[in-house]
Amino acid sequence: MGSRTAVRDVSELTTGRLSVYLRCLTYLESIGQKTVSSHELAERFHLNSAQIRKDLACFGEFGTRGVGYDVTLLKQQLVRELGIDRTRNAVIVGAGNLGMALADYHGFNSNGFHIVALLDNDPEKLGRISRSGVRVLPADKLADVIREQQVAIGIIAVTPESAQTVHDALADAGVAAVLNFAPAQLRLRSGVKVKSVDLRINLESLSFYLKGVKEGFTTE
Amino acid sequence: MGSRTAVRDVSELTTGRLSVYLRCLTYLESIGQKTVSSHELAERFHLNSAQIRKDLACFGEFGTRGVGYDVTLLKQQLVRELGIDRTRNAVIVGAGNLGMALADYHGFNSNGFHIVALLDNDPEKLGRISRSGVRVLPADKLADVIREQQVAIGIIAVTPESAQTVHDALADAGVAAVLNFAPAQLRLRSGVKVKSVDLRINLESLSFYLKGVKEGFTTE
Repeated sequence: MGSRTAVRDVSELTTGRLSVYLRCLTYLESIGQKTVSSHELAERFHLNSAQIRKDLACFGEFGTRGVGYDVTLLKQQLVRELGIDRTRNAVIVGAGNLGMALADYHGFNSNGFHIVALLDNDPEKLGRISRSGVRVLPADKLADVIREQQVAIGIIAVTPESAQTVHDALADAGVAAVLNFAPAQLRLRSGVKVKSVDLRINLESLSFYLKGVKEGFTTE
Repeated sequence: MGSRTAVRDVSELTTGRLSVYLRCLTYLESIGQKTVSSHELAERFHLNSAQIRKDLACFGEFGTRGVGYDVTLLKQQLVRELGIDRTRNAVIVGAGNLGMALADYHGFNSNGFHIVALLDNDPEKLGRISRSGVRVLPADKLADVIREQQVAIGIIAVTPESAQTVHDALADAGVAAVLNFAPAQLRLRSGVKVKSVDLRINLESLSFYLKGVKEGFTTE
């Protein structure tokens, strides 16, 4: 089954799992492991081995029966399938605490992603530089930065009230994908993919666990 | 099927979906809708109707054939099942950009969760107050704060190098659950549930989408 079929068939949930597999393989490679079976991957990282085989089957045959997957080859294939074998430029709009934190976030400015600028309309924030070296530019430079630096991804780190305006400005300027951290229901544009991040879901999952603990259950 | 069975059987993936359903129902309630079918939920919010019925079946029978679910009743039930019908106290360790952003994050300090303090060992940060009113206390007050305020959840927002120390301090002080934002492999303690957040997965999902776009596909 070729890459064309895979792109259309693979759901967002599956790409999330591919990212998880990539992390596992990166770890295994770092400790010098050469091959791994779906069963071992599942045991070691608390995953589902049937699901692993199903997810990886979409991308062709990597596994050898009885030997398992070649760790480095499978990792390289996942990197390609996730499209992070090239580097994409991104901007962060909003240079408050969240924007500054994201600019310095380990995974946002490495291995496939490059944050070219923070943008903000607060004069006091202009010219500041994040710890990792990302500079705060005036918000009215947004379209110029996106065009000149061929920015593909816009990251929204503003208040909910400003999120729609920022989304529209990003879309007008030609970004193809938006990562939205503002708790706002955005009116979407065709041709612009928006992924909204809701960090509260993680707390709710812990709450669900705690509820079990208090009632005397164990969930693991 | 009772709540006891549900707590043991429901995976972390399912609790994530319950959170998503809760958001959908909260929205429907806000626009005055009284009932909703699994089919309509699926269509409207791009979910899977068979999955919805399966997930909600674990929690008993709410749906009436031909009418659907009562929006308010199902919402209340999900709130109870997620354990957010009571308020749990949390602390954030690390008052850098990320910690301050989390202290002010809309879903972290409302409806089931209360951030009682930020803690940091940088003297310059002590006494600062986040926009939403959370105060920065000295890190050596961690155990006192956790005991006095019956804190159940510790949120790690420090550098990877400090994450293990903070995790151990939280565990020693008696928190039962940890939300970890540091990109570090933590050695876990039995009896302490740790959920690590990897924001990069969201970017990788967009990258996967962009790869399809560049190659001339549409994924939606």
